[in-house]
Amino acid sequence: MTEPRSQAEIPMKLIGPIKLTGPVVDGEVRVPLATLERPLWPSTNRGAKVSRACGGIRVTILDERMARSLLFEAADAGEALRVRESLDRRRDEVTAVVQASTRFGKFRDMHYQILGRMLFIRLEMQTGDAAGHNMVTLAADRLATWLSREYPALAYVSISGNYCTDKKVSAVNGILGRGRSAVAELTIPADGCAALLKTTPARVVDLNIKKNLIGTMLAGGVRTANAHYANILLGFYLATGQDAANIVEGSQGITFAEVRDGGALGFSVTLPSIIVGTVGSGKGLPYVRENLELLGCSAERPAGENARRLAAICAATVLCGELSLLAAQTNPGELMRAHETLERRGND
Amino acid sequence: MTEPRSQAEIPMKLIGPIKLTGPVVDGEVRVPLATLERPLWPSTNRGAKVSRACGGIRVTILDERMARSLLFEAADAGEALRVRESLDRRRDEVTAVVQASTRFGKFRDMHYQILGRMLFIRLEMQTGDAAGHNMVTLAADRLATWLSREYPALAYVSISGNYCTDKKVSAVNGILGRGRSAVAELTIPADGCAALLKTTPARVVDLNIKKNLIGTMLAGGVRTANAHYANILLGFYLATGQDAANIVEGSQGITFAEVRDGGALGFSVTLPSIIVGTVGSGKGLPYVRENLELLGCSAERPAGENARRLAAICAATVLCGELSLLAAQTNPGELMRAHETLERRGND
Amino acid sequence: MTEPRSQAEIPMKLIGPIKLTGPVVDGEVRVPLATLERPLWPSTNRGAKVSRACGGIRVTILDERMARSLLFEAADAGEALRVRESLDRRRDEVTAVVQASTRFGKFRDMHYQILGRMLFIRLEMQTGDAAGHNMVTLAADRLATWLSREYPALAYVSISGNYCTDKKVSAVNGILGRGRSAVAELTIPADGCAALLKTTPARVVDLNIKKNLIGTMLAGGVRTANAHYANILLGFYLATGQDAANIVEGSQGITFAEVRDGGALGFSVTLPSIIVGTVGSGKGLPYVRENLELLGCSAERPAGENARRLAAICAATVLCGELSLLAAQTNPGELMRAHETLERRGND
Amino acid sequence: MTEPRSQAEIPMKLIGPIKLTGPVVDGEVRVPLATLERPLWPSTNRGAKVSRACGGIRVTILDERMARSLLFEAADAGEALRVRESLDRRRDEVTAVVQASTRFGKFRDMHYQILGRMLFIRLEMQTGDAAGHNMVTLAADRLATWLSREYPALAYVSISGNYCTDKKVSAVNGILGRGRSAVAELTIPADGCAALLKTTPARVVDLNIKKNLIGTMLAGGVRTANAHYANILLGFYLATGQDAANIVEGSQGITFAEVRDGGALGFSVTLPSIIVGTVGSGKGLPYVRENLELLGCSAERPAGENARRLAAICAATVLCGELSLLAAQTNPGELMRAHETLERRGND
Repeated sequence: MTEPRSQAEIPMKLIGPIKLTGPVVDGEVRVPLATLERPLWPSTNRGAKVSRACGGIRVTILDERMARSLLFEAADAGEALRVRESLDRRRDEVTAVVQASTRFGKFRDMHYQILGRMLFIRLEMQTGDAAGHNMVTLAADRLATWLSREYPALAYVSISGNYCTDKKVSAVNGILGRGRSAVAELTIPADGCAALLKTTPARVVDLNIKKNLIGTMLAGGVRTANAHYANILLGFYLATGQDAANIVEGSQGITFAEVRDGGALGFSVTLPSIIVGTVGSGKGLPYVRENLELLGCSAERPAGENARRLAAICAATVLCGELSLLAAQTNPGELMRAHETLERRGND
Repeated sequence: MTEPRSQAEIPMKLIGPIKLTGPVVDGEVRVPLATLERPLWPSTNRGAKVSRACGGIRVTILDERMARSLLFEAADAGEALRVRESLDRRRDEVTAVVQASTRFGKFRDMHYQILGRMLFIRLEMQTGDAAGHNMVTLAADRLATWLSREYPALAYVSISGNYCTDKKVSAVNGILGRGRSAVAELTIPADGCAALLKTTPARVVDLNIKKNLIGTMLAGGVRTANAHYANILLGFYLATGQDAANIVEGSQGITFAEVRDGGALGFSVTLPSIIVGTVGSGKGLPYVRENLELLGCSAERPAGENARRLAAICAATVLCGELSLLAAQTNPGELMRAHETLERRGND
Repeated sequence: MTEPRSQAEIPMKLIGPIKLTGPVVDGEVRVPLATLERPLWPSTNRGAKVSRACGGIRVTILDERMARSLLFEAADAGEALRVRESLDRRRDEVTAVVQASTRFGKFRDMHYQILGRMLFIRLEMQTGDAAGHNMVTLAADRLATWLSREYPALAYVSISGNYCTDKKVSAVNGILGRGRSAVAELTIPADGCAALLKTTPARVVDLNIKKNLIGTMLAGGVRTANAHYANILLGFYLATGQDAANIVEGSQGITFAEVRDGGALGFSVTLPSIIVGTVGSGKGLPYVRENLELLGCSAERPAGENARRLAAICAATVLCGELSLLAAQTNPGELMRAHETLERRGND
Repeated sequence: MTEPRSQAEIPMKLIGPIKLTGPVVDGEVRVPLATLERPLWPSTNRGAKVSRACGGIRVTILDERMARSLLFEAADAGEALRVRESLDRRRDEVTAVVQASTRFGKFRDMHYQILGRMLFIRLEMQTGDAAGHNMVTLAADRLATWLSREYPALAYVSISGNYCTDKKVSAVNGILGRGRSAVAELTIPADGCAALLKTTPARVVDLNIKKNLIGTMLAGGVRTANAHYANILLGFYLATGQDAANIVEGSQGITFAEVRDGGALGFSVTLPSIIVGTVGSGKGLPYVRENLELLGCSAERPAGENARRLAAICAATVLCGELSLLAAQTNPGELMRAHETLERRGND
């Protein structure tokens, strides 16, 4: 039996440039995507072309935080409530415990759930340029030690009670925030839709309502209305050295399309949980370093700015891929023909 | 600006061997995992060790099918219902249309949703050794053409109405089936828990209830109760050339733990949507070919057997990783120490 | 301390007539609603007026079945699978066991879930004019006895495993069906919208997308997109002697609105789980008998027709109430003024 | 055609007394339940008997607030974010606007969601002894007027954007709070389980895990794990003049059972959204006044205390009904026999 190679080699290409505008990124960026699904490159590229033709994609970063939920148990619900109330009063002490565990992280907030006599404590931190899993887990570990000492009647259950929630479907991440939350928007005139996407604003709007909003709802989706964010996130995360299992939360985003005044297509993707960093595990790999450099995300900047830039580019890339696929699906047979053409061309 | 490399190079290691028993796979298998999260290797390896010490992991494949949902629109709901009823009567014709599109696929079933005047048609096929996305999309495309001809009053909306559902959170995939559905089970005597996992059956059972079942439920999860299936699925999918964006559906699985007669730990993972193939896009890459060979999944066998074997090994690997992490989380501080040790060791 | 009265006395009024068209009900019907929320009467009445002005509400009954899920446990998942496969082969015997328990019920289908070594068996029956809870529970009880005898290795866990699912939120009821599933549709010309609802088709469409589809999705809703189906269902269920706790499932419906050719508003409500009967517990109360008589649902007809008529009227009533509230919410301040006026008028 | 009566007459009985302990209610209370499901009375009564035998049910009120979500639209997501940030800075002004609308209500918090260019503003208030729908809607209306004046670029979309969320399934109500949130707990020694409930702690724990936690999860439930909270809530809400459509949110609660030290059964129900008031619409009806008096909820007390007392009794009643049904379902055939006996006895 041969030893396997020491690395999985996922084909990677540059797409774009994508044109971005707004306070976080203003300019054109070429974006690497690593994927086994070859149609993703030309498809996302088409969206990039639209971004350049239509004034650029405006990205707004709404929020950033990373969360970890400790799980403790009290004698009864009343005791759990008293601890929760005590922690609210001792917020300064809690903050100090958290801050003592980290150089770059900042305490942001705590949320609670009491279920029977269980107490879930969701610790939320701002984590600089890191995705922040380790930072918040370390802080949670220190906080757990402090809690066990200060509230000896509490019994420790777990460093993670899944109310975080990491790499699982949830509603909590979208409601309370986890990762960087972003909206990417683009306005495409009707003639641009026709020329570049072979469709009309009305058809994209109609498809988004029936497929993304209603179809996903019928499927039992939760806080999800999109065609394929996961594909684009995977390509982007693999190319930039992220923990790609976070595409699970990332996939829970919502596409919105509307016909704007003057008949243009207003198109946006809202991504509540982009989980990316420019430092931390995986970022030292040569191909990752090169890609972060290419994306302009390894400059000397105040903590958090590189990661925010990376998140913004990520959101814009998702918009490109989503727009292109939706446009294709408004045309019977186009999707199938695109795949067949690529297959005939083989391993291009 | 340098051109980026043409591939993302994700570190990959062999873990195991994992011991499997049962009708699908009986024997020991070493399993490649490609990941940037280094603690995943020793953690999953610990589970593999338990599998060898405790008689092997028994995997049962419950079901296999791939689905694509066409979306059409009728004049009103009554007309949509009449089409649905007509398709039920014309099942033989529908089957023939589907079968004409494929050499290896087999028509399995159709399910419907009517929403207002929209008609969602979920086509389900068995897809041999392929994951089957392209196969079922092609069949859906042919079926769409036939439907448009046979029911001219129907208006085509989309080749995919998200009732499939692909790479998004859903309940439908678990209820109606999508991908290969599997249960992996292992029974670990109490002394094995102590020696190999530094925990007790009761503590694992307790943690699974409070973290995986209740914590995920509080987070607003849907059909999900596990600690980190997504991590293991990602490592396995990347190593075997799968479309790794399918970890989104894959992550929706449920861990169950119970104290069995005699005090042993009964531990299982149920995965409704393992989406893997041994043929199709990505399978020709050298590292993928080697890994499929290593896993014994490229032999000459009746269609579907290689893919079923791969799915069974995947489920067993998920069990190893899940068991190990849960055991670690029953011990305060163990998780943190494990990560810190690995970090101190650096890029080993 | 006085003894309380022997009945809760919920104020009840007739609204309508509502005009219905289509195969199930064709004509005008006055509908009793029992509610403590007085604004519900004038609001639903406004919808009824629209139904008369615009050609009537067309109701389509998509499906009917009642479900109960047995829960058994096997030695392992493999054994559970063998039982499931055996039951598929012995479908005739299973049908006979079910049919022996009932005069009016008809076996429809069985669905399964295997989780670890648990086997959930969802028994589905058509239940004539009854809502059918008792009928299907009795059949499930008989089936459980038969299963225990035929498969002695199976361990009984529960007569109801919550995969039914009764009076709880779920996705399964919408996907597999539970209760009577119906679509009610109405087309309202633009001038009718202006005159009767003080709004425009475009504004109703816009509000439905942003509030019902997107707002509910952001809230973490599942298979739900409406403003207040529960209010109307409660009033209807109380007035007609139904088990009103079934508004929980009933609330999971989806409103759809679109601008049709010619500028009219196409408006529909899709209700997957209307759980009503014209016979069974509660139906003998005098006010219930009178109301069922008034609704034309106590005539001598083939089994099931009275209940289907009742379900159709229920769906049409929901449409009236939903349309009216949405229209009101398109106008800033209208909702508030309506409530304030009613309050000033006091206990009218 | 006869005119229908002016009220629905729902049979009502007193159950109990239920014994409660703890800071909110300490003593025995007889509880009226109005229902068409006659087995609910003896079943809940059995739970009440257990409460008296086992030291009483301890209820903890975790939180109270009522919410309404305004929906506005900005030019783009960046503008929506700037409004959100501005509102955070102007919190005192917002509070003043809200407080000017109400005598008894208190501003508690605001939460936001930005989706594309939409801005959802969830206003949360403490509402004294009222359930609070009208109070918070009025405050939201005033706030909307103020927002439109202060931020003229914002476009008003709706007084309710379904992020509230009222009478619909959601995750947001459990995560951010809506209504009174309560835990009711009872510890039942093993011999009490045997004598009063004909079961064992282990069997109740086992059933709760497999049916309530796992079965509901398989059904696609969200934040729900119980057997029949909706039944008990309906009976309680109807008897006390509540808007019973709120059982939809109320049904989303979680039962927890565990074997405590010494072998006793620890049993709790956690209800995130009990929506009750002792003043407001419906409370003036004679049977409602009598019942609130009977429950000790119409005394002269500081604002909110009567409603909290009512919520606590409601939670304890839910515990009684849930415990009794789960115990019954641990015994094959018991549930069926209970129903059959009641039916034979007829309209008792």
